[in-house]
Amino acid sequence: MPEYKAPIRDIKFVMKELLDCDKHYHQLGYDDATEDMVDAILLEAAKFTEQVIAPINQIGDQQGCTWTDGVVTTPDGFKDAYKQYVDGGWPTLSQNVEFGGQGLPHSLNAAISEMMSAANHSFAMYPGLSHGALATIEAHGTDKQKQQFIPKLVEGSWTGTMCLTESHCGTDLGMLRTKAELSDDGSYSLTGTKIFISAGDHDLSDNIVHIVIARIPGSPEGSKGISLFIVPKFNVNDDGSIADRNAVSCGSIEHKMGINANATCVINFDNAKGYLIGEVNRGLNCMFTFMNAARLAVALEGTAATEAAFQGSLAYAKDRLQMRSISGIKNPNGPADPIIVHPDVRRMLLTQKSIAEGGRALIGYLSQLVDITHVEKDEAKRAEADTTLALLTPIAKALLSELGFECTSHGVQIFGGHGFIKEWGMEQLMRDTKISCLYEGTTGIQALDLLARKILGSKGKILQPFMTDIGAFCQENAGNPAMTQHIQALGTYVKQWQEITANVGKKAMGNADEIGGASVDYLMFAGYVTLAYFWARMAAVAHSKLENGDDKAFYQAKIHTCEFYFKRILPRAQGHAACIEGGVDSMMALPSEDFAF
Amino acid sequence: MPEYKAPIRDIKFVMKELLDCDKHYHQLGYDDATEDMVDAILLEAAKFTEQVIAPINQIGDQQGCTWTDGVVTTPDGFKDAYKQYVDGGWPTLSQNVEFGGQGLPHSLNAAISEMMSAANHSFAMYPGLSHGALATIEAHGTDKQKQQFIPKLVEGSWTGTMCLTESHCGTDLGMLRTKAELSDDGSYSLTGTKIFISAGDHDLSDNIVHIVIARIPGSPEGSKGISLFIVPKFNVNDDGSIADRNAVSCGSIEHKMGINANATCVINFDNAKGYLIGEVNRGLNCMFTFMNAARLAVALEGTAATEAAFQGSLAYAKDRLQMRSISGIKNPNGPADPIIVHPDVRRMLLTQKSIAEGGRALIGYLSQLVDITHVEKDEAKRAEADTTLALLTPIAKALLSELGFECTSHGVQIFGGHGFIKEWGMEQLMRDTKISCLYEGTTGIQALDLLARKILGSKGKILQPFMTDIGAFCQENAGNPAMTQHIQALGTYVKQWQEITANVGKKAMGNADEIGGASVDYLMFAGYVTLAYFWARMAAVAHSKLENGDDKAFYQAKIHTCEFYFKRILPRAQGHAACIEGGVDSMMALPSEDFAF
Repeated sequence: MPEYKAPIRDIKFVMKELLDCDKHYHQLGYDDATEDMVDAILLEAAKFTEQVIAPINQIGDQQGCTWTDGVVTTPDGFKDAYKQYVDGGWPTLSQNVEFGGQGLPHSLNAAISEMMSAANHSFAMYPGLSHGALATIEAHGTDKQKQQFIPKLVEGSWTGTMCLTESHCGTDLGMLRTKAELSDDGSYSLTGTKIFISAGDHDLSDNIVHIVIARIPGSPEGSKGISLFIVPKFNVNDDGSIADRNAVSCGSIEHKMGINANATCVINFDNAKGYLIGEVNRGLNCMFTFMNAARLAVALEGTAATEAAFQGSLAYAKDRLQMRSISGIKNPNGPADPIIVHPDVRRMLLTQKSIAEGGRALIGYLSQLVDITHVEKDEAKRAEADTTLALLTPIAKALLSELGFECTSHGVQIFGGHGFIKEWGMEQLMRDTKISCLYEGTTGIQALDLLARKILGSKGKILQPFMTDIGAFCQENAGNPAMTQHIQALGTYVKQWQEITANVGKKAMGNADEIGGASVDYLMFAGYVTLAYFWARMAAVAHSKLENGDDKAFYQAKIHTCEFYFKRILPRAQGHAACIEGGVDSMMALPSEDFAF
Repeated sequence: MPEYKAPIRDIKFVMKELLDCDKHYHQLGYDDATEDMVDAILLEAAKFTEQVIAPINQIGDQQGCTWTDGVVTTPDGFKDAYKQYVDGGWPTLSQNVEFGGQGLPHSLNAAISEMMSAANHSFAMYPGLSHGALATIEAHGTDKQKQQFIPKLVEGSWTGTMCLTESHCGTDLGMLRTKAELSDDGSYSLTGTKIFISAGDHDLSDNIVHIVIARIPGSPEGSKGISLFIVPKFNVNDDGSIADRNAVSCGSIEHKMGINANATCVINFDNAKGYLIGEVNRGLNCMFTFMNAARLAVALEGTAATEAAFQGSLAYAKDRLQMRSISGIKNPNGPADPIIVHPDVRRMLLTQKSIAEGGRALIGYLSQLVDITHVEKDEAKRAEADTTLALLTPIAKALLSELGFECTSHGVQIFGGHGFIKEWGMEQLMRDTKISCLYEGTTGIQALDLLARKILGSKGKILQPFMTDIGAFCQENAGNPAMTQHIQALGTYVKQWQEITANVGKKAMGNADEIGGASVDYLMFAGYVTLAYFWARMAAVAHSKLENGDDKAFYQAKIHTCEFYFKRILPRAQGHAACIEGGVDSMMALPSEDFAF
């Protein structure tokens, strides 16, 4: 099992040197997020994730959650670790002061979430889902609901879930069958079965607050007849204390490929008491508020898995002696060279490194945009942040989860046969991270959201603020000889991105299926260019820091990794461009009944 | 769990229509391999794999093999299925008549191996490894050894293993420590521990014949001091009957990501009795004979996994209703359209289909080359087959295992969240097939074998016969308007392949690491072009058959799938070419100690 070390140096590089969080926090009025405070929190989070969360990752996978007579038990150590998480005040970090939170910025919390997820994907999902439930109630609940439910969710003594999927509908929520009937007391009675409910039942918290979508009889069919409800596992008195058990039960848990320590539950509602959140039939709109945050959280999981795989792979690649370097012996005193001398092993390691660090920069940037949408007073600035968040969220979600899967797979390959053995931990990372390509909308769904709904839906306007940022960066650095090559490449790729967008848009006017035909390749192309922009920004910072003296090796490594990204990762975009060029006709020509004989 | 149906129509298309096996068998003197015989065997094999082997695939994964006090037990049903396999005479099919085999061609057996592996990867490995042991003894053993060991291996009542890896050496076998000391009776006494021994112990057969590499004291260090031994689990009397237990024991089995129903064993030799095969210190050369066959078998596993994933995905994609087609409602009487209408789902299905069928054609072709190397009398023809086999074996092994992994991952994606759940069977396919990217030499090792040892090592000469074949095919079809686009594309890509080869060769003269830097992208580029050639050949056959009448839908599907391959898969090669262009410098610049801070 690889030992997890929180990459504090790089997290600080992204937060402070790349994204100037001091200035950002100051401008947004986060006065408590001082430099000292940020440093202290990061350090404590590193300690907590390394010493408490990471050590139970492997046993969590081995034991998994167990279900007996409707009760779910988490693996050894999870209950204690969760208690420490709550006692340490971690759930409260970026929550509203009004409800007992510390009022610190979301972006600081995101850095900690990365550590949590890298240390233990399954564990990190429990608080992650609570955040979603909490944010939904905070945005759309009544004052009474907020008082009843939010403080306990903030403190972490209760956890939350999102109950959307049913067995016959995942992506297509309009088909849901769970119904909610109005009771005399103004509450609703919910009946139906939800599946794939992560953290749907467990033994970590005193109560579980389910956010459930259901249809009120008489509502329109499809997605316009969906309403949103709070359905607690235990009913809650007006003062927020726990009352009797609600008619919510866990029917079973799934046997899965990974994230075994997080129970994926079938949840049955049998005339369970629920409370409407927001307006009747506006449930899906309320959900979407939450959905973007959830997708960013998944993007972060991909980055975290890549970091974890990189750490394990790097340690092994330095230690494992096998074969001699093709360009001459590098370890003359040993029986063979460490495998890190072999170019193809370096290719895989640098792929992991460039994706982990590039992903971290992208996520860091997006989480600052989230800060802006939360508290910025200037409406225009908030709107611009919203636009770029909308553009980059599906890109980050799909790109970083797919690359997280690729990079954990590189981890398995670097370990050779040992990578396939559970003991070494690499295959668990791969199994765990595959879920990130699926939940909160598959890669295909992200790609359609990006290309159909957002880019073509806005006639490309959604691209403008981001393109303007890239253009400004290129102009600022045009005179820097160290940056010339990257700036040129970035310019060429951005231009190609715009051309591809125009071409697909034109073709789609003749045949709407061209959108779906291009979508995933389009997203990957856009994603590689987006990461290239963040890599160029990081290299520019590294060059300027190099001149000043300290920490030369760190900045030099950034520059080398950027070079690798531009030379060996970004060119993959050419494959995607060529596939998009191939169009959709060859995908649609074959009748469904003739796929197999 | 997807139901497996042997793709008999397509197997026959490849064997008969594409590769004219009747003529091929006739020319090689395989007089028993008549058309009727081939048809009957394929049909029986389909029945056996569908009804006996496939049904125990899922339970095999769930139960796995168990180890108790040195004894390995296979999952429920495996013992009975293996008995049926032996009783049906399947192990004897392509074995030498002299030892009780049926003397049928290897290429016919390969078609059956595909069915076996698609139905149950873990099960198929048991006979697969026996073939390896058997082939090694047949090629290098003494007459006495052949008489003692081969008949039982042919009949399947004994199985075999290959014992190469030790904990500190996998790729780098020169570092092995297992020693073999000469005894007074001319046998050897072996001491050491081997790991990762597939089928190393189990309860399916009466005896297990281990083929073991070890060092005789006083032999040169490194790979030039390795000898090869037969070490049976039970000693064998001169007449081939079983004697007492040898000092070979299974120390434990690995807990793995997949292929759980095939025990991966630690095998301890404690002064075990062994018999030298071949010459002293020539063990590695003897192994290489076997290695190529093993690598082809792994390529076949990738194709098989792709086919199995395709079948499951296709059934689900036709059945699962979710969302409406972006180009207009396709299933007006249902609550939603089947997901096969969505272009991105079709992209994944057609990727699976084009790789399964393309891979099948490539494997079919290679297995005919194996037939030629086995029995062709004309030395020049045999040498030419050998050359092309040497070229295409690492390509097929790495390309088809990597694409098998990709295509099983598409299976998971097509199933959405359900893909992550064990019950549906898609995630098992993915876990099982990941091993194919690792064993018998990782993808990185195949790529080095291809580019360093074979292509640059022969100054490109090894490419010539294959390039000549492609050139001849292009010329033959130049006048066919239906083929013009594909022929042009193929010509362009082949030219680019040659240019890339020349460029890498030139760069490598300045820096040998350029080879390792380019190798995996080079292999993938070559692989996509190789499959394009087989797709073009299949399309040419389909066009000519279409003119004649029957089975129009089948041939039309071939043509559509070929179109998809050329438009949407082959262009990926451009991404690989662009990455190769990036060179190795950016991979080597970062000192090992500066990868992490």
